[in-house]
Amino acid sequence: MATKKISLLGSTGSIGRQTLDIVQAHRDTLEVVALAAGAGNLDVFAEQIKQFRPAVVGVPTDENRKTLLEKLGSEIRVEIETGSTGLETVAAESGADTVVTGVVGFLGLKPTAKAIEKGKTIALANKETLVAAGSAVMPMVQKYGAKIVPVDSEHSAIFQSLSGYTTNDVHSIWLTASGGPFRTWTKEQIESATRSDALKHPNWSMGQKITIDSATLMNKGLEIVEARWLFDITADRIRVVVHPQSILHSAVEFVDGSIVGQMGLPDMRLPIHYALFHPERVHSERVPRLDLTTLSQLTFEEPDIERFACLAIAKKVASEDNTSACVMNAANEIVVAAFLNERIGFKDIPKLIEQVLEKHKPVTNPGLDDILEADRWARQEADNLLKSRAA
Amino acid sequence: MATKKISLLGSTGSIGRQTLDIVQAHRDTLEVVALAAGAGNLDVFAEQIKQFRPAVVGVPTDENRKTLLEKLGSEIRVEIETGSTGLETVAAESGADTVVTGVVGFLGLKPTAKAIEKGKTIALANKETLVAAGSAVMPMVQKYGAKIVPVDSEHSAIFQSLSGYTTNDVHSIWLTASGGPFRTWTKEQIESATRSDALKHPNWSMGQKITIDSATLMNKGLEIVEARWLFDITADRIRVVVHPQSILHSAVEFVDGSIVGQMGLPDMRLPIHYALFHPERVHSERVPRLDLTTLSQLTFEEPDIERFACLAIAKKVASEDNTSACVMNAANEIVVAAFLNERIGFKDIPKLIEQVLEKHKPVTNPGLDDILEADRWARQEADNLLKSRAA
Repeated sequence: MATKKISLLGSTGSIGRQTLDIVQAHRDTLEVVALAAGAGNLDVFAEQIKQFRPAVVGVPTDENRKTLLEKLGSEIRVEIETGSTGLETVAAESGADTVVTGVVGFLGLKPTAKAIEKGKTIALANKETLVAAGSAVMPMVQKYGAKIVPVDSEHSAIFQSLSGYTTNDVHSIWLTASGGPFRTWTKEQIESATRSDALKHPNWSMGQKITIDSATLMNKGLEIVEARWLFDITADRIRVVVHPQSILHSAVEFVDGSIVGQMGLPDMRLPIHYALFHPERVHSERVPRLDLTTLSQLTFEEPDIERFACLAIAKKVASEDNTSACVMNAANEIVVAAFLNERIGFKDIPKLIEQVLEKHKPVTNPGLDDILEADRWARQEADNLLKSRAA
Repeated sequence: MATKKISLLGSTGSIGRQTLDIVQAHRDTLEVVALAAGAGNLDVFAEQIKQFRPAVVGVPTDENRKTLLEKLGSEIRVEIETGSTGLETVAAESGADTVVTGVVGFLGLKPTAKAIEKGKTIALANKETLVAAGSAVMPMVQKYGAKIVPVDSEHSAIFQSLSGYTTNDVHSIWLTASGGPFRTWTKEQIESATRSDALKHPNWSMGQKITIDSATLMNKGLEIVEARWLFDITADRIRVVVHPQSILHSAVEFVDGSIVGQMGLPDMRLPIHYALFHPERVHSERVPRLDLTTLSQLTFEEPDIERFACLAIAKKVASEDNTSACVMNAANEIVVAAFLNERIGFKDIPKLIEQVLEKHKPVTNPGLDDILEADRWARQEADNLLKSRAA
């Protein structure tokens, strides 16, 4: 197989590091041409640049650029771009075949859109691109002949299970959820959960924001919205099933009643590896194999939307064709950050999101500008609510 | 979709009745053009002919033909062929697009070969075609542009899971086994199992011969051989996993470590429906749907070849390129019939099959003639062993 050129947004985050781990094991066929990272871990970023020697990298600020240059020393030659220009250059102007969008949050939207305009394959780990802007992004994918290969484990499982078929053959999608750390907790216990309780995810090692989303089940709600756009299926045909062992990563139920699903150990390197090599299947040097005979038991249960109000909010929003999903996502980012800073309690997360949604005047079939405005408004509104509570 | 013409061998057996149940629900798109049945249930066969009005049918003997004509009365016009000519006419000369080979045992081989020579799609439920004659049949499939779509649930699951990929992408195949009625029995208990013990299958409703094969796990052994030919994969890459709930019907482990499997309720109408409509997925009126949220638990375990000697015999035979699998299959048919007639005990089944295999002089890369001769010899030898025991 020919060498595939990879660019990566969010290089020092959880998805980014695992992506580079896989690239390292396949340097004969995968080449890193561009990397972008946040300001949080420039030491690691400098090491990554020394190891993979991309032609261009992106960092948030000129200050970061200066720090990075010092860390790299004089022998490493690399073009360093900053800010949104940096992200967009790495995503769209670096000659990559596949762009891995491992950056968390709304920040991932614009560079992803630029890469789509270049007809690239997007290995999409940034949920918000589709959650907030699916109605605008999916027509672009079609128009520019781009391709989205999902990286998170559930959508990768659905994508793999759909191989050889189209959405017309689908009766419904089964989205599996681990249930998070509070699956067996009572409503009262959940309402008084602490930051450290919520950060203890049973199966997956992920960033903090996603771990909280997993505790509230907002993660699954965002995935419903994402699946809706990615697989062109109405939200009422996407069913969530709680599966605490995280072995079945999701499944497709075809019109004939047959259910095809994808299984594996809970390790993000599997969907990342799949997305990097798609449409080929390549022997993995890094993905640990699942031995089915060692599975003691797999269990499944209905999710409880009484205890997990965020899932109920997302299910409602997922059935709408407007800016509500964008607003929900933006409000969730602000509110989760406030929870991580211990400004609010766990039970306040769904309450505040609902309050923002109640005030929102949704725009139907929004374009990118409507979405940017709805996002800005929702963040502001969530901030205002947080401030008025603190006062 | 255009009407698909179906012919069916083994019309009154378990697979045959379920096939007609599905056809009945889809008479706008499926048309029965030919049926063949054994002598055991001519009343049912006459009713099937009245209901589906095939142009040609097959029965074993002239006597059966006469009986059938009486049951049909004067208003039903149908061509009735007998013996092997009848089976071959129904399989290959009836204008069918898809031939369902629901006949049990070695009897299915020749008509299936005739249908392959006509380039037809074979909905294969007759295990013995590939078990005994895979080395001869698979090159014919290629030569004549025929297609085999497996009907038994395990191979259908593998076939569905492979959709969009080829054997080159496969690391291994996971063949699931219910474990049969004796899964939790001790070796001593199994050795003294009675006919009625062995006929109590926990999940599947099937014919008696297959139910006994399921109790000995020879069923799974035959499936290893079948999978080997059907998916062009060496036997050492086919792993059996005991899964008592029979929900995961089998799975494919790709080279990248991803496992894709097919799930459903244990109901043969699902793989039959799939094979009848392949390559399309068509809404099913008959297949009961699986609700994942109602699965209390799925369990998996390593099969115990100490207690299930037939599986060990078959694993060894499956790795060979000669007439041994044919001999194992033929000996198994005779020996299982003797067990069903209560002439021998359950523990004698693997012993007698091994005795026949020990006496066999295998022919490497056999043609159909070698296979027919090996089959004849093995049946004779098994009969002789049974007679010498009785004496």
